[in-house]
Amino acid sequence: MAEKNERGTNSGIIIERLRQKFGTEVLDMFAQAKEPTLHIAVRTLSNVYFDDKKNMIMLGNKTQKRTFFDLKDARKFMQTLIIANGCKNLIESGKTTSIRDLFYNTKHTIGDTKENTFDEQEESDPIIEDIEVSANALREELHLRAQSKGSMVGDLTIQDAGDTIDLRKMGSGGWAVPSIVEPDIVQFKECGAKFILFIEKDAVWSRFNEDKFWKKHNCIIIHGGGQPPRGVRRMLRRLHDELKLPTYVLVDNDPWGFYIYSVVRQGSINLAYESVRMAVPDARFIGLSSFDQERYKLPAEVTIKLDDGDKKRVKEILAYPWFQRKEWREELEHMVKKGVKLELEALSSKKLTFITDTYLPEKIERKEWLA
Amino acid sequence: MAEKNERGTNSGIIIERLRQKFGTEVLDMFAQAKEPTLHIAVRTLSNVYFDDKKNMIMLGNKTQKRTFFDLKDARKFMQTLIIANGCKNLIESGKTTSIRDLFYNTKHTIGDTKENTFDEQEESDPIIEDIEVSANALREELHLRAQSKGSMVGDLTIQDAGDTIDLRKMGSGGWAVPSIVEPDIVQFKECGAKFILFIEKDAVWSRFNEDKFWKKHNCIIIHGGGQPPRGVRRMLRRLHDELKLPTYVLVDNDPWGFYIYSVVRQGSINLAYESVRMAVPDARFIGLSSFDQERYKLPAEVTIKLDDGDKKRVKEILAYPWFQRKEWREELEHMVKKGVKLELEALSSKKLTFITDTYLPEKIERKEWLA
Repeated sequence: MAEKNERGTNSGIIIERLRQKFGTEVLDMFAQAKEPTLHIAVRTLSNVYFDDKKNMIMLGNKTQKRTFFDLKDARKFMQTLIIANGCKNLIESGKTTSIRDLFYNTKHTIGDTKENTFDEQEESDPIIEDIEVSANALREELHLRAQSKGSMVGDLTIQDAGDTIDLRKMGSGGWAVPSIVEPDIVQFKECGAKFILFIEKDAVWSRFNEDKFWKKHNCIIIHGGGQPPRGVRRMLRRLHDELKLPTYVLVDNDPWGFYIYSVVRQGSINLAYESVRMAVPDARFIGLSSFDQERYKLPAEVTIKLDDGDKKRVKEILAYPWFQRKEWREELEHMVKKGVKLELEALSSKKLTFITDTYLPEKIERKEWLA
Repeated sequence: MAEKNERGTNSGIIIERLRQKFGTEVLDMFAQAKEPTLHIAVRTLSNVYFDDKKNMIMLGNKTQKRTFFDLKDARKFMQTLIIANGCKNLIESGKTTSIRDLFYNTKHTIGDTKENTFDEQEESDPIIEDIEVSANALREELHLRAQSKGSMVGDLTIQDAGDTIDLRKMGSGGWAVPSIVEPDIVQFKECGAKFILFIEKDAVWSRFNEDKFWKKHNCIIIHGGGQPPRGVRRMLRRLHDELKLPTYVLVDNDPWGFYIYSVVRQGSINLAYESVRMAVPDARFIGLSSFDQERYKLPAEVTIKLDDGDKKRVKEILAYPWFQRKEWREELEHMVKKGVKLELEALSSKKLTFITDTYLPEKIERKEWLA
């Protein structure tokens, strides 16, 4: 489980970082009678920026102090050491667990007091993020699981926790993408795929799987049941990087679809420090485009009126630095001009298999994507 | 895809039922100058009852007429025939699709009017339920998919859409349970499992999978990401019936957990007509029990106070006819008396693997379940 891998970080290195930053250094400060202090990266918007070259949302260098002898910091200081120790134990034991489980595992009443180490999970979750940034490790590398959602099939064989899994023979259900897909758990083996197709909706993914789209077009298809969870995002990044395959994103033509594309591509503001391992900066937006209704002569009755919330969201997206290119502005402005949105399922008004027979193959053939 | 199976209904039979009830019979009424009329089962609470012998929520015999020449019925009459025809086409083509997709596929503006066949999916969904009941077919047998969620591994080999899948070699992710698991798509092959364990939460399922619980204890473990979707419920029923294995349900000790158990066991009021194919009337409730805190000496700080919503929900559940046995009343009343609920993760306060090492094996060994 702890092998060194091209992209992954050796678990030993992460344990060492935790021991150093939250163990040895703190003990040294005590020993030298200095005030024990932790430096934690600031994760608010004021420390987030868009890196034009990398094409990603990144975290800046601002840090804040957390000192042991400061009354308002002392509790968080203790919590930080408890969680760091919990993660170290997890990695050492080769086990993974959920952030909720770690909360319960580390929650206890201190000595004879009525003071708990943590009262609510809202206290332990931000501490986990502090440690991720400080130890320069994804929470998955700290052996912490998030929700798992999503499924994957295609022209690829993988190894998962020691089992060899042929993703060409996964029936109608597919392989459930786990929350942790780090290289010490999941490895890629034989691959005949020429591209990766990320699909927003599980129902549409099932259309692609049932029609064996991945077989006819030599690709990998993956969905995350709506907004993709961390496991699916990290998987997309690893597939893209390690297999050197182009990644296409297929979402509804609405502000939410654009947002999902944006998160897959550039990362999110909340988790800016993770972009560097989760984002796929050259992911291609293959559809639905605001111009598809005209292009494919879809009837008016399958469109849905934009509501005020949609319009507001489009304005917000238009303000993102990564949607400033001419083609993107045209795409978003055309949606507002027409005043309607379009779901992937709207293509079924032509034919149930129109999306797999015609739409997607044509789009790729004609290179009709945005990046 | 259309083979006859012990438990499944031959697709040919379902096509014939659709053709008969929504085609031939209607045409005959037109030919005989009778008023074309459909008889649709009533699906409201007034026609739902609890069957003590079968231990299931069932639908009664009340039906309502839908006549073609009645102004308020005419639209629904048309919609019923359109959806029935759509399902027939689906089954004949061997394709499956989502109810949203079928809505788009059948939505169109009629002739030169401004009238649409359907305006919103809220119109087509109840029609699908009408047809399910009238044709005595699950929507899955009409080739309609619901949301897919959940994952499964264990001592079992299955076939899914022609692929042989060894559920003993599915890594950390598992096989994603599809929405349609009818016998013409999913078949069970070699099985060494002695029981089935349904787990409410995906994070807890991952604990059981990582600890290879299913291997040590020869079983199948399955989750549905919270309230299980139809595919997981139908899968539980088929596993139970066809493999003749006891089914254990492991949920949080809160009203929501009891409700999930109740749905797995007896079906839900909304979908009473499906109980007969989805419910597992002798599913065993293995935990968490309201008595587990004392039994396992769990510290007070890992309990959560019941709020007013919880207390109200417990009262509702206490009124269900299927929670009237003494043991059940004690279970529910003890929760209210203590005033706290308990999540599965609370067991991690003892040890992360307490639930897999000790809790579950002991419960099964000592036969500490409720049914």
